[in-house]
Amino acid sequence: MRARLEALSAGLEEMGCEALLVLAPSAEDTDLAPFLPGPAHIGECFLVLPRGGEPRLGFLTLMEREEAAGTGLALLTPDDLDISKLSSEMPEAGPFLARVWGKALELCGIAPGRVALAGHGPAGVIQGACSLLASHGWTWVPGNSLVFASRKRKEAPELAGIREAAGGACEAMRAVAALLASASHDGPGSELYLKGEPLTVARVRSEVARVFFQRGLEQPRGSILAPAEEGAVPHNSGTPGRVLRAGESFVVDLYPRGRLFADCTRTFCVGEPPEALARGHALVRAAVEEVHRRSVPGTRGWDLQEAVCGMFGEAGFPTPISEPGTTRGYVHNLGHGVGFDLHEFPTFKKASGGEGVLRAGDVFTIEPGLYEPEQGWGVRLEDLVHLGPDGLESLTPLPYDLDPRAYL
Amino acid sequence: MRARLEALSAGLEEMGCEALLVLAPSAEDTDLAPFLPGPAHIGECFLVLPRGGEPRLGFLTLMEREEAAGTGLALLTPDDLDISKLSSEMPEAGPFLARVWGKALELCGIAPGRVALAGHGPAGVIQGACSLLASHGWTWVPGNSLVFASRKRKEAPELAGIREAAGGACEAMRAVAALLASASHDGPGSELYLKGEPLTVARVRSEVARVFFQRGLEQPRGSILAPAEEGAVPHNSGTPGRVLRAGESFVVDLYPRGRLFADCTRTFCVGEPPEALARGHALVRAAVEEVHRRSVPGTRGWDLQEAVCGMFGEAGFPTPISEPGTTRGYVHNLGHGVGFDLHEFPTFKKASGGEGVLRAGDVFTIEPGLYEPEQGWGVRLEDLVHLGPDGLESLTPLPYDLDPRAYL
Repeated sequence: MRARLEALSAGLEEMGCEALLVLAPSAEDTDLAPFLPGPAHIGECFLVLPRGGEPRLGFLTLMEREEAAGTGLALLTPDDLDISKLSSEMPEAGPFLARVWGKALELCGIAPGRVALAGHGPAGVIQGACSLLASHGWTWVPGNSLVFASRKRKEAPELAGIREAAGGACEAMRAVAALLASASHDGPGSELYLKGEPLTVARVRSEVARVFFQRGLEQPRGSILAPAEEGAVPHNSGTPGRVLRAGESFVVDLYPRGRLFADCTRTFCVGEPPEALARGHALVRAAVEEVHRRSVPGTRGWDLQEAVCGMFGEAGFPTPISEPGTTRGYVHNLGHGVGFDLHEFPTFKKASGGEGVLRAGDVFTIEPGLYEPEQGWGVRLEDLVHLGPDGLESLTPLPYDLDPRAYL
Repeated sequence: MRARLEALSAGLEEMGCEALLVLAPSAEDTDLAPFLPGPAHIGECFLVLPRGGEPRLGFLTLMEREEAAGTGLALLTPDDLDISKLSSEMPEAGPFLARVWGKALELCGIAPGRVALAGHGPAGVIQGACSLLASHGWTWVPGNSLVFASRKRKEAPELAGIREAAGGACEAMRAVAALLASASHDGPGSELYLKGEPLTVARVRSEVARVFFQRGLEQPRGSILAPAEEGAVPHNSGTPGRVLRAGESFVVDLYPRGRLFADCTRTFCVGEPPEALARGHALVRAAVEEVHRRSVPGTRGWDLQEAVCGMFGEAGFPTPISEPGTTRGYVHNLGHGVGFDLHEFPTFKKASGGEGVLRAGDVFTIEPGLYEPEQGWGVRLEDLVHLGPDGLESLTPLPYDLDPRAYL
């Protein structure tokens, strides 16, 4: 935490800002949670970090005083902030919050000037409150990416949280493989049956939910369970009633959250895969393995994306580099950081500075894929990895095989 | 939906705005979801509603084209918005989004002018993008409360979604009561035992989670399971390892979400309640029943709050009216609307216009409570109700008793 606060203060200095203001609909906000020692059950709140100083947590209702005190942070209480009076005088959220934030900054010794703004909230209210404060001498500088950057390197308890979610993702993936492996069918193209019932996407989804429930994990962003033509479009989440078939691809992309997120994808095929699918799978697997080897501190994410585009391009597939906007072949980016948000730094995008360079402490995905909507198949293999002091560690150490039996 | 769009257009006219722009981190955003026919698995997106026109959904990645098409809305596709080019030219979120939103408004035939802004997102990015667009002639008007107001009256499928979540809350409450009723103890003040194990808050929490899992409901905001002194502070969520005891209050406040939220609270006491707790419970119950009777179309929420404060004040308890900021007695507001958000309109706050008046179609809570932190007890009873054409309907038709056996 100390290192993170110092990095933030350095960033504020570079931006010419006196303080950072983090707005949060709840203490679970992904820009606020990195400042807390653990989960806290607090509603609308905010954090003020004076440059070079200590963070203070502001909260709006006395009912939350015990939860707020439990964070161990210095507090700006509803009494400090004069909430009762302000809320009765100002029914509208924008003017009310402008007064509250202004008061909080003042209590932290910040005079009107440049303040970096991070966190999340209602767009119109934020815009309105910031405009009001701007007319009182406050200048707002976008600060979300500063906080985003500060949490690129994971602290030990954060890594533990990701590891826990990744363990759940692996268990769920094995449970999916077990379902698929125990299904019966009458050869290529025929429907899969489980205990006399057609095996649907919904049935697999409920198996995944069962594992996550037992582990206390949630799926706030859902999950992707996409057979054949549905899996050929990477973000198609799968139609519940769709019955799975032998010989088709089945993309399973799980991103559960405990305190933090994890993210893992495997692609299955029950029975003999068609030749094109088998070849696509072998190429994607080779790409994952190549990127594992190349992911060392100092590597740029974009360089890895270029390498994978090179591999797929040589094999005759279009890529985002050879055909920007393509919907067949390799159609997306290679990976993304994972943590409080499902997508955070490091980035694998072309236009990037330090946030696009892999460093020790980063947790990110490696997820090449190939997609053929016309042929009705898609393959994606996604590992979640931690770049540790002793090299790259996979947090999702599962087989890569299409055959679900390899996972048992 | 038609009535909602017309109400929005009328609101835009009143605000002198040409259009509404709703920003959303995902299609689940509570300001965006009310425009969709059902859940959609789409990431960052937005909606443009020209005054008097039809809404159009903008999305940023081609991978989501099928999910976006599934909404049935007119679309602004990544190609329409020139996403590939803009994202490669502009690595920073603020300037990138400013161009995207500007392009979207232009494609919808909106010339630079006054636009209402709603939805949610990263504070700094939104503020930055809006400032950029302001320098090109756009004027931003806070629009969250316009959308908020437009979803005060629930559409039939929304009511169905709330009803489903409320059914789960009731089942979970009965499951909690069953656990408590089957616990053994050695008289007032002694610990509760279940099958030889001390009965903890964590054990009850896992029973609640089991029911919600089976019903496909989540608890994105958690829940409150707060015994005695913990329940005496309304937002204390309960310490997992705390063992429950006979003769103490146990506040159980559940707010699961399916497509929409529900919200329900009961307070239990295993064994004989102390006199003060029994008296407090009887007063709270009388208040709930009185508010049920008074909740007719045209009633102001604040008038109901005043009535309840009157009842509790006469019984000798401080209230937010007699002692603003009190932490004993009646310490909160009487209720709130429930729907896409856990807290929405109608409001029961004093300073309110139409959003504080109960109307047919509203879904809201009635939740008086009494709290004595020094004595170590709290009581809250909360019903979720729908003001229908035939009067008030409770969506949480449970007993109010302290004795869990009454729920079996």
